[in-house]
This record gives sequence, C-alpha cells and structure tokens, in this order.
Amino acid sequence: MTKRIGIIGAGTAGLQLGLHLRRHGVDVTIVTDLAPDDYAGSRLPNTVAHHAVTVERERALGVDFWPTEDHGYFGHHYYVGGPEPLRFYGDYKSPSRAVDYRIYHPRLMEEFLDRGGKIEIRQIVHDDVAPLAARFDLLVVCTGKGPFGQMFGRVPEHSPFDRPQRQLCVGVFRGISQLPTRAVVWSASPGAGEMIEIPFLTFGGMASALVFENHPGGDLEVLAQTRYDDDPKAFRALALGKLRAHYPMTAERIEDERDFDLANGPLDILQGGVTPAVRRSHIVLDNGVLAVALGDVQATVDPVLGQGGNMASYAAWILGEEIVAQDVLDHRFVEHVEHRRGDRVLSATRWTNFMLDTLRTLPPEFLGFVQAMSRSRPLADEFTDGFNYPERQWDRFASPGRTAAWVAETASATDDAAVPALVG
Amino acid sequence: MTKRIGIIGAGTAGLQLGLHLRRHGVDVTIVTDLAPDDYAGSRLPNTVAHHAVTVERERALGVDFWPTEDHGYFGHHYYVGGPEPLRFYGDYKSPSRAVDYRIYHPRLMEEFLDRGGKIEIRQIVHDDVAPLAARFDLLVVCTGKGPFGQMFGRVPEHSPFDRPQRQLCVGVFRGISQLPTRAVVWSASPGAGEMIEIPFLTFGGMASALVFENHPGGDLEVLAQTRYDDDPKAFRALALGKLRAHYPMTAERIEDERDFDLANGPLDILQGGVTPAVRRSHIVLDNGVLAVALGDVQATVDPVLGQGGNMASYAAWILGEEIVAQDVLDHRFVEHVEHRRGDRVLSATRWTNFMLDTLRTLPPEFLGFVQAMSRSRPLADEFTDGFNYPERQWDRFASPGRTAAWVAETASATDDAAVPALVG
Ligand SMILES: Cc1cc2nc3c(=O)[nH]c(=O)nc-3n(C[C@H](O)[C@H](O)[C@H](O)COP(=O)(O)OP(=O)(O)OC[C@H]3O[C@@H](n4cnc5c(N)ncnc54)[C@H](O)[C@@H]3O)c2cc1C
Ligand SMILES: Cc1cc2nc3c(=O)[nH]c(=O)nc-3n(C[C@H](O)[C@H](O)[C@H](O)COP(=O)(O)OP(=O)(O)OC[C@H]3O[C@@H](n4cnc5c(N)ncnc54)[C@H](O)[C@@H]3O)c2cc1C
Repeated sequence: MTKRIGIIGAGTAGLQLGLHLRRHGVDVTIVTDLAPDDYAGSRLPNTVAHHAVTVERERALGVDFWPTEDHGYFGHHYYVGGPEPLRFYGDYKSPSRAVDYRIYHPRLMEEFLDRGGKIEIRQIVHDDVAPLAARFDLLVVCTGKGPFGQMFGRVPEHSPFDRPQRQLCVGVFRGISQLPTRAVVWSASPGAGEMIEIPFLTFGGMASALVFENHPGGDLEVLAQTRYDDDPKAFRALALGKLRAHYPMTAERIEDERDFDLANGPLDILQGGVTPAVRRSHIVLDNGVLAVALGDVQATVDPVLGQGGNMASYAAWILGEEIVAQDVLDHRFVEHVEHRRGDRVLSATRWTNFMLDTLRTLPPEFLGFVQAMSRSRPLADEFTDGFNYPERQWDRFASPGRTAAWVAETASATDDAAVPALVG
Repeated sequence: MTKRIGIIGAGTAGLQLGLHLRRHGVDVTIVTDLAPDDYAGSRLPNTVAHHAVTVERERALGVDFWPTEDHGYFGHHYYVGGPEPLRFYGDYKSPSRAVDYRIYHPRLMEEFLDRGGKIEIRQIVHDDVAPLAARFDLLVVCTGKGPFGQMFGRVPEHSPFDRPQRQLCVGVFRGISQLPTRAVVWSASPGAGEMIEIPFLTFGGMASALVFENHPGGDLEVLAQTRYDDDPKAFRALALGKLRAHYPMTAERIEDERDFDLANGPLDILQGGVTPAVRRSHIVLDNGVLAVALGDVQATVDPVLGQGGNMASYAAWILGEEIVAQDVLDHRFVEHVEHRRGDRVLSATRWTNFMLDTLRTLPPEFLGFVQAMSRSRPLADEFTDGFNYPERQWDRFASPGRTAAWVAETASATDDAAVPALVG
C-alpha cells in the first residue's frame, strides 16, 4: 500500500515529519510559503531552544548538523528578584541547543529534498485545501501559530485565555559575554516579567537571544511597544536600563555598553504576543480525507518555558510512526496518534499556562517551592531536566499537594533538608 | 506515605484490585454485600470466560487456582447458519478458562483476607458513601452493572443504546458431551440470535455454559421469557428444540436428551438483558475524596463477545499500578489511569456494540469477512486470539477499510487466497 502524504508548512513540525517519512520511503510533499533562499533576509521568527529529547530525534533523523559539543548549553541559572533575590542553578542530564530557525529550516529543507522529498513553494489559502487534499491520503497542517491553522477549532476547555498573557520583546544580541559554562539564564522580576537569555547560534556565530516576557501593564511592557527601527540608539538605552533594573544576572555580563546591540542588524528583533490555544486534532475534509493538526496549529503556547518547538518535534515523530505503522488513515488512526501525543502536548500547555499565571501572581506556595529549589540542588536539577518532559513536570504542578510531595521526596535526599512547608 | 483505599464490591474488579494492592502492602478494605458463604446458595450471576491475558494476571497475583491444563479451552469453533452454513475454527495462542463466579469470588475473598485485606459485609446505599469516603484516601466503586454504579453519569457519546440489544437466557447445562479438544462453540443464527457454548467449571465439575443471545422479536426470544421453575420439563423441551433448529453444532453433542438439564439445579439459569453503557471515570465527593469507577460500573457491555470481566480485570490491574506508583490521588492521577485503561475499555465497548448491530443486520461486507475467515485459518486464529486484545480487534473493525486491509494482509499469507472483495 503506497501512502501519499501532504504537509502544509516547512517549520520544525513539517520538516521533521517529512524527514521521518522519507526514512521510511513514504511519498511526501511539503507545500510552504518560503523558499530556502528567503530565510536569510527575513525577520527573526522566534528563538527556539531544542532540548535533549529533540536533539536526540534530530540525531535519529540524521540532521544534527549543530552538535551540542560546539553549540549546546548545559543547564539553567535561575534568578528571582525581590527584596531578597534568589540565585541558583540546575543541570540538564544532556545539553540543549538553540539555532536560529533562519539557518535551521532552510538547511533541513535542503536535506529533505536530497532525500527524495518534494517541496512546492506557495502560500496556501483556504480555497486551495480541497484540491490539495485530493492529491493525498492524508493532509498534515503545520503552518504555525498564524491564522491558517484556525481552520481547526479551539478546544475551549484547554484554551483558558483569549489574549496574550505576555507582551514579548525578543532579540538576538551581541555584547553580552558568555558564561564560562554555557547555560540559559532564566530570570523573573516580580510584578514586571521574566526574561530568558539563551546561548544562540545565529548568522554571525554564537550570540545571546533575549526573550523578554513582559507583564501587561507592568514596567517592562514598554519594551514590546518601542520600535528599534524608529531610533536604534534609544531602544538600546531603554533595553540596557531595563536589563540593569530587572535582570542583573544578564546585565552584569555587558562589559562595554557600546557593544550591546542586535547581533545581525535590525531584522533580529521580534515584538508581539502569543495567545495560547489548543485546537482540534483533526477535521474531515469534504472529500473524506483527514486533515491532522500538528505543532503550533494544534497547541500554541507562550514561549516562557520553551515548549512549543520541542512539542512540535515530539508530535511530528509520533505522527510519523503512526503513518508508517497504520494501513488505514482514518479516525481510528487519529485516535492512536492522539493517545500517544496527547499527554505531552496537553501537559506542556497546562504547565505553561499554569506558570504564566503563577509567575504573575506569585502565590506563597510557589515562592516556597522556589526557595526549596534554591536550597536543594537535586530539586533544581529535576526541575531543569523536566523541561524535556512536560508531562512529568505537570505531574509535579497539577495540584499543590503534588508539588509538596515531590519537594518532600526530592529535597529530603539532600543534606540541606531545611525545606519550608509548602502547603498549609 | 500510607494510603488507605476503600473498595465497594467484591467482584472480579474489586478482588483483583484488592489482591494487587495487598501485594504492595497497601491498606485496603473491601465493602461488599455477599459473604463468602452466601455464594453457594445464590443464583448463577453470569458465565465468565477469562482469556489468557486475565489468567496471566491471576498468575501474577498468585490466585490461579484453576490451571488451564485442567480447566482451560483452546479456541473457538464458529458456526454461522443460513442457506449455506459455515463452520470453521480459530486458535488462541494461550488457553482461556471459565469458572463459576460462585466458586471464584468466595475463593478470592478468602485469599484476600489471608493476605491482610479487610472485608466488611453490608450493602451500601448512597447515604453510606460520604461516611465511607471519610475513612479513605480513595474510594473505588466496582459494584457491577446494578443501580449503585449509576452515581457515575452515562457518557452519551459512548453509550449509543438505551435498552438491551439481546434478550439473554443463560444456563449451566449437563448432557452436552465435551469436544475432543475443549473449545468455545460460537454460533450465529441469522435473524434469531447467537449462542456461545463455554466449557465451564461449576460446583459439580466441568459442564457447559450456554449463553443464548436472542434478538428482540425473533424466534429465540421466547427462551428469555419462559421460566424454568414454572415447568422444568417444558423448558428443557423448548431449549432442546431451539438448539436443534438454530445451533446444530451444539445440539449434535446431546446424545441422550434425558441427560440435558441445568447442571446443579434451578439456580443455574439467568434471564434478562444488559443495557450497554459507558460511565464517567470518576467523581469528586463532597469531602474532596475521589471516587473512581471500575469494571462494569465504568463500562457495561453485552456478553456476546465475553469482554466485561476481562476488561474489569485489566482496568483493576492498571488502577492498582497507578495507586501504588502515585503519591497524590487527585485528578491528575485519574488522568494517568484513564490514559492507560481507556483505549482497551473503550475498544471492548465499541467492538461489542459494533458486533451487536452487525450480527443483527449482517451487512454483505461482514458476511464477506466471515467467509474470508472460513477460508483462512490464520485469519480465524487472529480473530480468535484478538478476544484477548479488544483494542487490536477495534483496529480491525473501526472502519470497513480497516477490515479489508487486515483481511488482505492476513489471508494473502495463506494458500487458499481466494478471498472475496470486502468493500465496494
Ligand atoms: C519568541 C519565541 C521563542 C520561542 N522559544 C521556544 C523555545 O525556546 N523552545 C521551544 O520549543 N519553542 C519555542 N518557541 C515556539 C516555537 O517557535 C514553535 O512552537 C515552533 O516553531 C512550532 O513549529 P511549527 O512547525 O508548528 O510551526 P513553525 O515553525 O511556525 O512553521 C510554520 C511553517 O508554515 C509555513 N506557513 C505558514 N503559513 C503558511 C501558509 N498559509 N501556506 C504555506 N506555508 C505556510 C511557514 O513559513 C513555516 O514554514 C518560541 C516561539 C517564540 C515566538
Ligand atoms: C451472562 C453473562 C456472561 C458473561 N460472560 C462473560 C465472559 O465470558 N467474559 C467476560 O469477560 N465477561 C463476561 N460477562 C461480564 C462479566 O460478568 C462482568 O463484566 C464482570 O463480572 C464485571 O466485574 P465487576 O467486578 O465490575 O462486577 P461484578 O463481578 O458484578 O461484581 C460486583 C460486586 O459488587 C457487589 N455489590 C453490588 N452492589 C453492591 C452494593 N450496593 N453494596 C455492596 N456491594 C455490592 C456484588 O455482590 C459483587 O461482589 C458476562 C456477563 C453476563 C451477564
């Protein structure tokens, strides 16, 4: 039985799925709006860290072109501001890695073509879907968080927000010296926002991605509203001031303020907001062919915990395995896919949405948890490595009793067992 | 952390769960309405075959007191009546075994008590639930298909029927000689019903359970409406006549009609009907304790495919593992349970409901499938062993295309490859 698979969108989901299917000799066509040559001149789309679980899948697909030995990082420094700031560190079991998608995606497109995949370059609008579906046994829609994916309805019970929860300002910067051992610096400024500094491979080599997650109405929101292009110097001064005021653990490594700027020019900045949403896993098109939602189309999360791309890669792998394994691509096929990808996808969503709320409101039991992490390295390690496994993370945060039980178990294994009570 | 688990109902689900938990030292109390001594004088409750997957769990629990070497059976003979009756046979990979629950349940209760389990004998009514829940960290409700379990609401999307689809007449009989190699005889009489003859261990040794699944309004319905007690002789004559007319593959082994009767007296017969239903997996009681539905309470199926007890045993095992594994018995805990038991439970339900319809309406593609089985031993074997794995069976019946693909793949491996086209 030969299966013809159509994929709309050459992002991480579409490319990893396409490469997976090609490894199994499946006939697969990606239709996407950007040609490989278009990427270099395009705006920064995001700053995506791939965790070890994703890097492992890239190895299995033979597309780990940016080995973690050269470009990876090894854990998270945490900084939580306030009257008595906390600083602590947690290790991964295996390193993560972040490559500019303007490098990553065209390279994987090339590879997909080399391996017999077909790519058609055009932007798909809704009227194109029916004729496209007629050519395939299954249509996979992974066009990212843009409007096209809305053809899959929102699932209200898993989509608690109707607007962005953070005003984002995201840039790739130079002038911040690297830590002796590469790591993410994950900072929170109570009442204002969070910022994630990521060692980031971009066109000019390693630089620093700064993801400013600004609370609406807070002191940092201005970063999302001030255009770099209007006055680069003013923007840099603004960003520097905010860094010094809110995120010292990054600011302290800016040795010469004159070096602090976007790494490769004015396209290296992105501003806006993400409305988290979970959408239906599939729809049946008029000709009976299934369209399956994948990646951000199925579940869009705020980038505060770096889950979207990893989840897209995971879901692409599962979908690939099921396409290969199953003879008939019908409702039951989708059930198998959902059964396997659902818990991780939903857990990443819930954990992220939970953190968006919790980091804004900082309830005492959460501060107690952060304090416990600052005193227990094993706890900080488990939390950090947990970025790989959102379903385990959700096991720990789904209820205050779960967090308390986890902390009691993990922190009691350490010397410094003076862990505060977490739940009243 | 010590967990106190309360279970209502000492059926297959409750006892296997209780024994599982005792193996892990968990504090567990079963509250049930029948004491071990009550069973011998009670009416036949059902005639349950445990498939190999269930027997394996019984071995793991150390309660396989009726080894399949002595009491097991090895496959299914199929008989499908009509102008050109079909007869064929399919093998299990490992044998099944059916023991009268009036022997099985009290024996397992004893064993549970010996292993430190606690049993309280009383019938629970709704007002008892709150005080009961206050004593435990989790309440498991497995009171079978009776009214008590209705505290868990029906899930309409998985409960297509609002009345029984078969009028049952079920008895344990003597006077039918055993086949040379023990097997179920699974017969269908188009337009009238199905009958399952099961080698059955009851009080007097091995006998034959006959499960008459009579179509409402058909020639066999009278079997469900005629009381044995009113006139045993008339009932026996009626049953014999119907057997000879509809189910020759069993009738032909009644050598002396005078020997044909209920095996152990007038309590060995059961008449009525089962309304299939899937109910909510859990509810939160007023004191915050979870009540989890298990076994027939969660999903009641018609016995035509012998799935209910096996599904209850499977779900009890999963629930036991998760109770042992998880620190906090909250919503997230139920999610893990559901994620693991859901597909099998739902597949057993869907496959059974599908067969109830299909065996009544006998659409041509289904007759084509039966013909294919009659010509391909590997196909009949796979179908037969599939009684162990309802989720695989549902993979094969969820759509006509799936059945066709399975038949094409399996039957093509045989010599007699003349398989008719199944889907138009
Ligand atoms: C600032 C920021 C930081 C992030 N950081 C992280 C992180 O650290 N870790 C992480 O895991 N995730 C992160 N994410 C999320 C991550 O970017 C997404 O989850 C991931 O890119 C989703 O992959 P995808 O393949 O579903 O969609 P995309 O990668 O967005 O790909 C969509 C593809 O579809 C194409 N396309 C779109 N519309 C059409 C159309 N109509 N017709 C044809 N083609 C179309 C696009 O060109 C593109 O090729 C971040 C996101 C942002 C915004
Ligand atoms: C005729 C027939 C044939 C069948 N054949 C098969 C087969 O071949 N294979 C198969 O897998 N399944 C078969 N089944 C289905 C099988 O019987 C059930 O699925 C199985 O018994 C369910 O187990 P359970 O533990 O959920 O409930 P049950 O075994 O029904 O146990 C319920 C328990 O709860 C107790 N109880 C009930 N109400 C209360 C109360 N209010 N308070 C206290 N205690 C209470 C009862 O005494 C009992 O101990 C058949 C069913 C029938 C009717």
